[in-house]
Amino acid sequence: MEQMIDSGVLSAENDKRAKDLEADYAALGEKLARNGVNIDDVTAKVAAYGVAVPSWGVGTGGTRFARFPGSGEPRHIFDKLEDCAVIQQLTRATPTVSLHIPWDKVDDLTELKERGTALGLGFDAMNSNTFQDQDGQDHSYKYGSLSHTDAATRQQAIDHNIECIEIGKALGSKALTVWIGDGSNFPGQSHFTKQFERYLDAMKSIYAALPDDWRIFSEHKIFEPAFYSTVVQDWGTNYLIAKELGPKAFCLVDLGHHAPNVNIEMIVARLIQFGKLGGFHFNDSKYGDDDLDTGSIDPFRLFLVFNELVDAEGAENFNPAHMLDQSHNVTDPIESLMRSAVEVTRAYAQALLVDRAALSAYQQENDPMMASETLKDAFRTDVGPILAMARKNAGGAVAPIAAYRAAGYRRKVSGERPAVSGAGGGIV
Amino acid sequence: MEQMIDSGVLSAENDKRAKDLEADYAALGEKLARNGVNIDDVTAKVAAYGVAVPSWGVGTGGTRFARFPGSGEPRHIFDKLEDCAVIQQLTRATPTVSLHIPWDKVDDLTELKERGTALGLGFDAMNSNTFQDQDGQDHSYKYGSLSHTDAATRQQAIDHNIECIEIGKALGSKALTVWIGDGSNFPGQSHFTKQFERYLDAMKSIYAALPDDWRIFSEHKIFEPAFYSTVVQDWGTNYLIAKELGPKAFCLVDLGHHAPNVNIEMIVARLIQFGKLGGFHFNDSKYGDDDLDTGSIDPFRLFLVFNELVDAEGAENFNPAHMLDQSHNVTDPIESLMRSAVEVTRAYAQALLVDRAALSAYQQENDPMMASETLKDAFRTDVGPILAMARKNAGGAVAPIAAYRAAGYRRKVSGERPAVSGAGGGIV
Amino acid sequence: MEQMIDSGVLSAENDKRAKDLEADYAALGEKLARNGVNIDDVTAKVAAYGVAVPSWGVGTGGTRFARFPGSGEPRHIFDKLEDCAVIQQLTRATPTVSLHIPWDKVDDLTELKERGTALGLGFDAMNSNTFQDQDGQDHSYKYGSLSHTDAATRQQAIDHNIECIEIGKALGSKALTVWIGDGSNFPGQSHFTKQFERYLDAMKSIYAALPDDWRIFSEHKIFEPAFYSTVVQDWGTNYLIAKELGPKAFCLVDLGHHAPNVNIEMIVARLIQFGKLGGFHFNDSKYGDDDLDTGSIDPFRLFLVFNELVDAEGAENFNPAHMLDQSHNVTDPIESLMRSAVEVTRAYAQALLVDRAALSAYQQENDPMMASETLKDAFRTDVGPILAMARKNAGGAVAPIAAYRAAGYRRKVSGERPAVSGAGGGIV
Amino acid sequence: MEQMIDSGVLSAENDKRAKDLEADYAALGEKLARNGVNIDDVTAKVAAYGVAVPSWGVGTGGTRFARFPGSGEPRHIFDKLEDCAVIQQLTRATPTVSLHIPWDKVDDLTELKERGTALGLGFDAMNSNTFQDQDGQDHSYKYGSLSHTDAATRQQAIDHNIECIEIGKALGSKALTVWIGDGSNFPGQSHFTKQFERYLDAMKSIYAALPDDWRIFSEHKIFEPAFYSTVVQDWGTNYLIAKELGPKAFCLVDLGHHAPNVNIEMIVARLIQFGKLGGFHFNDSKYGDDDLDTGSIDPFRLFLVFNELVDAEGAENFNPAHMLDQSHNVTDPIESLMRSAVEVTRAYAQALLVDRAALSAYQQENDPMMASETLKDAFRTDVGPILAMARKNAGGAVAPIAAYRAAGYRRKVSGERPAVSGAGGGIV
Repeated sequence: MEQMIDSGVLSAENDKRAKDLEADYAALGEKLARNGVNIDDVTAKVAAYGVAVPSWGVGTGGTRFARFPGSGEPRHIFDKLEDCAVIQQLTRATPTVSLHIPWDKVDDLTELKERGTALGLGFDAMNSNTFQDQDGQDHSYKYGSLSHTDAATRQQAIDHNIECIEIGKALGSKALTVWIGDGSNFPGQSHFTKQFERYLDAMKSIYAALPDDWRIFSEHKIFEPAFYSTVVQDWGTNYLIAKELGPKAFCLVDLGHHAPNVNIEMIVARLIQFGKLGGFHFNDSKYGDDDLDTGSIDPFRLFLVFNELVDAEGAENFNPAHMLDQSHNVTDPIESLMRSAVEVTRAYAQALLVDRAALSAYQQENDPMMASETLKDAFRTDVGPILAMARKNAGGAVAPIAAYRAAGYRRKVSGERPAVSGAGGGIV
Repeated sequence: MEQMIDSGVLSAENDKRAKDLEADYAALGEKLARNGVNIDDVTAKVAAYGVAVPSWGVGTGGTRFARFPGSGEPRHIFDKLEDCAVIQQLTRATPTVSLHIPWDKVDDLTELKERGTALGLGFDAMNSNTFQDQDGQDHSYKYGSLSHTDAATRQQAIDHNIECIEIGKALGSKALTVWIGDGSNFPGQSHFTKQFERYLDAMKSIYAALPDDWRIFSEHKIFEPAFYSTVVQDWGTNYLIAKELGPKAFCLVDLGHHAPNVNIEMIVARLIQFGKLGGFHFNDSKYGDDDLDTGSIDPFRLFLVFNELVDAEGAENFNPAHMLDQSHNVTDPIESLMRSAVEVTRAYAQALLVDRAALSAYQQENDPMMASETLKDAFRTDVGPILAMARKNAGGAVAPIAAYRAAGYRRKVSGERPAVSGAGGGIV
Repeated sequence: MEQMIDSGVLSAENDKRAKDLEADYAALGEKLARNGVNIDDVTAKVAAYGVAVPSWGVGTGGTRFARFPGSGEPRHIFDKLEDCAVIQQLTRATPTVSLHIPWDKVDDLTELKERGTALGLGFDAMNSNTFQDQDGQDHSYKYGSLSHTDAATRQQAIDHNIECIEIGKALGSKALTVWIGDGSNFPGQSHFTKQFERYLDAMKSIYAALPDDWRIFSEHKIFEPAFYSTVVQDWGTNYLIAKELGPKAFCLVDLGHHAPNVNIEMIVARLIQFGKLGGFHFNDSKYGDDDLDTGSIDPFRLFLVFNELVDAEGAENFNPAHMLDQSHNVTDPIESLMRSAVEVTRAYAQALLVDRAALSAYQQENDPMMASETLKDAFRTDVGPILAMARKNAGGAVAPIAAYRAAGYRRKVSGERPAVSGAGGGIV
Repeated sequence: MEQMIDSGVLSAENDKRAKDLEADYAALGEKLARNGVNIDDVTAKVAAYGVAVPSWGVGTGGTRFARFPGSGEPRHIFDKLEDCAVIQQLTRATPTVSLHIPWDKVDDLTELKERGTALGLGFDAMNSNTFQDQDGQDHSYKYGSLSHTDAATRQQAIDHNIECIEIGKALGSKALTVWIGDGSNFPGQSHFTKQFERYLDAMKSIYAALPDDWRIFSEHKIFEPAFYSTVVQDWGTNYLIAKELGPKAFCLVDLGHHAPNVNIEMIVARLIQFGKLGGFHFNDSKYGDDDLDTGSIDPFRLFLVFNELVDAEGAENFNPAHMLDQSHNVTDPIESLMRSAVEVTRAYAQALLVDRAALSAYQQENDPMMASETLKDAFRTDVGPILAMARKNAGGAVAPIAAYRAAGYRRKVSGERPAVSGAGGGIV
């Protein structure tokens, strides 16, 4: 496999940290053993965990006010794949990439697939784009795509989604994620029910083109880019969609797409209970769809989501897709994605440590104090040594960001990839 | 029919305003006629509209910090009925009362029903109470009722709901509203899925006891009295309940029970579309479940809800229940309920004025400017003369609050009903 | 004065509506007279009211996801001025334009000023831009501008603001509005106190360059483009700034820049009380800084703001600047600005109708029912005839949007101004 | 000193955990030493930390819907002091109690003070109560207290606050906390400015009675019990109050009293910067003023607050008061207060571990990745062994809740204190 980061640099970085890691791992192992937990079992589970990286995430993001590009920005999907390979090489937690069409469109899909293989990367869910107009497009999405009042516009959006499936089939993907910007900015602009009926009809056409071993994920979002209503505004509507479409349709939960104060882990539990949890777009946020690094704002909330996932492990047909979806406006995107992959894994490891038998008993006995402390005990555990050991064992970095910086990857690609001019964002 | 307010006082009050009302009604009629609207048709529809008054609403409400009772507080359901009769006599928009058990429990249901008839009042949906413990109760609801981990506690709550149905049958009610305080205050306290399964099982037992011509309404609420999670947290869960239970089960929407920023009128549209809108608890709020007078904080939002309702009029099986549900902490409860009944009727009248053919065309053509202005034109119309004329024609008051004050009803009952001591609220 | 809209078309449009307007105005006048209000006095006050139009508002806005340009987009400030002249010609409520530098930078300021004069437009507050990087700029604002850790970057931002003052002086402006995007995306990224100290120091340098007859407005915003913290996050910080700077410094309130549920009219009252209300950026929003048309989401909130303004009229040194600040993503920007100007004027007219003597008495007597109904009575009044009459008397349009469409202005400029390609927004 | 918990039970509990604690403490000490941190220094700082317990917190709380009392509820301040002594004995982090008047009023203040001394408890800030009416009170607070329109009502509230100062002087308290429920439920009910002027005047009268070595804390809150506006709605208004009153006046921050999404740690930083941070009411919340156990919902937010406090340590006149303020509706209040005291201490310990030199450098260099990871590294550290060792060294419990349960304190007092009947909460 092609290595983006020099293995000598990586080894040297790991060697510097090996002794401390051993000591910390041993101390943690001893502590966990007291509770009957074998640390190596946890490490093995963590090592088997993977989260998909979004191809668009390796570019610097922006807001409607501005975008401040970094250096060495990827120019196309092949550059992006190399950046993704760095992330996977160092974290060993991101074995797949999720593509966005037409941004990642190429002439030769075989070449793309082979490049992925060479870099040790598979292809996760495909993402369609009907929230932007592309040059030469017949119909504009200004007033909607799959829910547009005009049948030809809807058909164009349907065709695009089917094209995404076709591309995905060639690449080995098994899922299509559909997020639309459709909605309205003013009361009265759209008829809620007719609009949703049009959306459902269009989605049924896409669903009909879905291979038997694929899944389709619909994604809800309360606002932005539409500011009065969105067609798929919350998990309630999202559930109705998945139910209407059929057994291959599931709901995708983006952590930043909810109203303030909403209990997201409970939504996750409900979707699991009713067999419709499709997966996640992980990120963190304080205000809206801030798309910040996962776990950077409210790490306990992330843990509570994973607590539901671990609790449901082993349930029939329970197989949610895990993806990152972030906008990296002020950091090196590779660094942000590495840390986010680590944070997701951290939450998973912490959730694995929850004493579920004890928790269940406290819940049954109505002992909220001990029930909540049981969760907190797991959350408070510094599982860092487990994560680092899992990475190290798999050939990754004990300290991914330090290793990345030591290797000088960003400096290297900055020399190879021409600087992007400081293009402004959307609009004020 | 027994009149709570002296008809002489009422007539005198109306007479003072008759000439102005005629002039305003004529001017408005002329204006509406230009748009092809016959004002008398609107007035007739308004006159046929009714919203139920909550029996508990005629007492002064409070917060966990304190309750500041007013004078002449009703001592029992018979006093409450008289207060409700005042509201109906003056507004002619509140022909029914919604009872809460055990607060309104009486020994002789026939006497209660007859008293209602004598006062011109019918009985709307019954409300059960499993969010408080009653003296002598076997099992406490401290840790839940219909979703409690203990089967005996759940059965007690089921039995209570069935008792409410029995009482309602004797009174002519046709619906049961179930709102529970069940939830949790700390992550881990409750297992979301098991808790919801227990709730669904318990609701199925209640549903089984529901007469064929009854409906059962479940009510969602994001928080309070539980502060981390609630079992029926939003319309998504509420829909799942109604779907699981069967064709007599519907969702109740309380306007104050949602997360910040949520588009409530869209939830209304979704529930209509999927045949599960049961009805409303009308009130207004700025922060949480503030239970303020309907339309007092965001009258345009109330209008947008009614816009959906008028749009759906005539649809099959579309028959939502309209109820007020407010807490009157600083006003005379009778005055607040009268003004709220008027505000609900105002929103209905405004929604009737929406030019739906034009609106539909603007929506189809993606003309958000004219579509939103079409709604706004209706909202901006001062329909006061229509409401006043409808009341006057039906024997009510042109100006309900002025007539009420002129009649001195509060002063009168203050003399008859002993003062309640300044009992403190729940707790800090 | 140069007229953008053919006076013949305008007259014809007005003539069609003249008779109805007379009737409606007369009916409303009669109604108001009963309460001792002379409608012509109100109309005169309304006619004297003006709100500034933002030069950037006449272009189609967008989000970070996409921008969907309309036809006939203005290419530069001279095109923008013509669009603004249309708005002023038809509404007679927008006599001034607020410029944004460097977007509106020109070589010849005299030419610009004269063009404004020819079109009947004056120049309102100047707006600086340190939230975007410009080509050839020495220092990037990626990590801040006036609060940047680097002194040279701060100086660059200071110099730019001083340049804006210089441009404004040439144009007759009397105020500088400073909104920055400075903040942080992650806990720890910035030291709150040091960052704010740097900001204050930089603002003091700008303040020192402010002419004696100018004002400087600082604008607070809770989030976006920064998503964890912003330097000027709320009115509390904004007040501290104005206080630190001195008597020419004031706070600007953008209606969409607050946390959910916040009582904005109360903030307005506090700033008035402490002598620091500088003015407004009017718009409406449901979720965040949605920048929707003023009054389109919550018209009662807009009225409550104006209620505070009218209440404070006549107070010493009370002279807030009124400006629109919106993003028109799905409408014709000229139409949105016209309707928004009308809505602001409507709220003003309604606030003028509040019976303040009665209100004050009800407040004193603790009669919340009558106090709140006193406000509502004013809000419910359909003041449309007053607004239309004020426009008509001043040579504007009875129905601005209808007249605008009848005149075919957008079609005309679409032929003259080359189509903008469907450039994408910032980023996903 | 009188011990509420049998020292034999406590020793036995501690002995069971001694060996594991030693091992964990040693392992953590080794890890910290690598970063140049001496664990014993941290432990010493933690041992010196204290947070006040609210006397009202040891009783079971409730909501407006219901209160579900526990067993062994304290009957009066002497019972409460004993419960507080349990908390202090086991956690060694709560050396003082904060009283609420008139709830904790006694005839003999000397007896009360001596009882505190005997139990090892001092008296923290006094709390006045003008949000409830007391039996026999001349004027009702239904429509406000310190801001009431009636001068006699205001004077009554002023006198009560001065009485609280007098009581506090006898007990050795050095601060008065003023939280009022004043506000309004409907637009128009109150004149914002006049209301605030009345409040300021009243506060000045209280301030005039404040001893020279006392501080007065005003507390802001966005809503509840008032639901449209509150007089002291946010930190901006709170700052103005402290500024108007003088150098002994400071702002109190209750973590649950803010609008959704607000950045509380930044408010803390601003108040520190401008010399007006008085102290905290610690608790946690998800929706409103939920008053949940500190750190139970968002532990990272609590850490970020302490990060500001540790950062400011040593600044002139920086001496914020730390108090818990929670409502324990479903847990044993003693257990909740113990765990909350531990959580506050945990956040403090984590904040002490932040590498401030590194953080400062990353901030200066605009390296948000490493800056935020620096904070996270400290937060992720499991400081449990430090906290336990500090408690053990001071004679407290290694595991406070386990020791408390083992000692059977609740069972004991349940036998001594008569059961409280299941009194209902305020109102629906």
